[in-house]
Amino acid sequence: MLESKNPREALSHVRVVLIHTTHPGNIGAAARAMWTMGLSQLVLVSPSRFPAPEAEAMASGADVVLEHAQVVATLPEALAGCVWAAGFSARPREFAGRVLSARETAEEAARLLAAEASPDIALVFGTEMSGLSNAELAQCTVAAAIPANPQYSSLNLAAAVQVAAYELRAALLGAGAVWQAPRFVGAAHEEIERLYAHAEKTLIACGFLNPERPKRLLPRLRRLFARAGLEQEEVNILRGILAEMDVLLKEAQERNGSESE
Amino acid sequence: MLESKNPREALSHVRVVLIHTTHPGNIGAAARAMWTMGLSQLVLVSPSRFPAPEAEAMASGADVVLEHAQVVATLPEALAGCVWAAGFSARPREFAGRVLSARETAEEAARLLAAEASPDIALVFGTEMSGLSNAELAQCTVAAAIPANPQYSSLNLAAAVQVAAYELRAALLGAGAVWQAPRFVGAAHEEIERLYAHAEKTLIACGFLNPERPKRLLPRLRRLFARAGLEQEEVNILRGILAEMDVLLKEAQERNGSESE
Repeated sequence: MLESKNPREALSHVRVVLIHTTHPGNIGAAARAMWTMGLSQLVLVSPSRFPAPEAEAMASGADVVLEHAQVVATLPEALAGCVWAAGFSARPREFAGRVLSARETAEEAARLLAAEASPDIALVFGTEMSGLSNAELAQCTVAAAIPANPQYSSLNLAAAVQVAAYELRAALLGAGAVWQAPRFVGAAHEEIERLYAHAEKTLIACGFLNPERPKRLLPRLRRLFARAGLEQEEVNILRGILAEMDVLLKEAQERNGSESE
Repeated sequence: MLESKNPREALSHVRVVLIHTTHPGNIGAAARAMWTMGLSQLVLVSPSRFPAPEAEAMASGADVVLEHAQVVATLPEALAGCVWAAGFSARPREFAGRVLSARETAEEAARLLAAEASPDIALVFGTEMSGLSNAELAQCTVAAAIPANPQYSSLNLAAAVQVAAYELRAALLGAGAVWQAPRFVGAAHEEIERLYAHAEKTLIACGFLNPERPKRLLPRLRRLFARAGLEQEEVNILRGILAEMDVLLKEAQERNGSESE
């Protein structure tokens, strides 16, 4: 994760370029994938059909991206003003330049976006059936490959955009959890030791633990609770249960006592 | 990237569980997303409609996953035999357990899969409209969150499966490039020095470089080629060009010589 003045501002300098997209539904799905990761600049190079109702249906709430999408005739027009472009390809065999993984691509993009000048950069995707042509890939700064199953490496267009955009967001903002688990506050050491002392006494009293042959019962309980990490409330609950057992034991003793009287 | 006996074998121990999927097309798209990352065990908890032609259309070559998909009635049936399950949720607010990012989830899964015993584990996804319910999430070991745009965090179901499966594959096999750029073999130091010596001589001979006032021409050429990294074939080409210049210069000199005779 790179320090950046403003990651949202940085994301506004990223174009997603889709070349000759055949199915308008894929344009909508790509727009949704982009917007989930905070990318909004979509450039379409001579799509088969756009605007289209299928695109809007698949965008599902990411209409803002479609509304601002630019349609251009050629890849050079789409890349005008960009200082760097990554061409996504499953098989960049013929590419003469550097081939990076999706993660490396995102890290390089994030470094560029962190620069003072805030240059424009592009993520470029080819047509559904055959991907980027060699001539299209040659116009990119780097080729980007998403590591995939060698038996079946054909990601859906919007799925590839999702992975690329996800990695870019992760590189800019970190891949860490967005939702933090409620902070764990462990019970104090002496509270936990009182619990174990209480448990030992009660378990001996009820006959479950034989002090002559304790085996490994208490160490095992310690191990279990240490692994879980006990909070004060949980200590209270466990001691409450032990106290209930104590009451029952006392009643049983008194009954036994009165019976033997 | 964890060392594992056999990553493909490890991936065969991962189930993807989709609960109450409404659109069969999303089941097909999820199957495709799984198979691109080498996952093949799909379990469907009471889907609206399956099998369905839309599922097959969207699977697009990943039919093998659909063919082997299991349909069950409840989440506990889907998770039977699993030692660990990650429930993907955009808002795991109510979840009492640990909330991990998609990357942390994949790393934890990879550690489990690397164990000798090779336990079965699951990645669990809720219905399209509302995701996992609190009751469903409570049956999972951890909640998994894909870091997303806080304004619009709603990934398409198959897109979420794609990111989860991509991260798992990356954790098991590494996120590095699958396609290595052809290994660069630089020219030997002395070959490059001969090139510079040749260039200096020729550029002086043609008058482009004034040895009295060389400015920074040669250092700049050195810097340029050092940055590119020269291969032997490129050295040969550049020296070929210089040799052509030498021939032209010699012809010019001879012509001048004969003219001045």
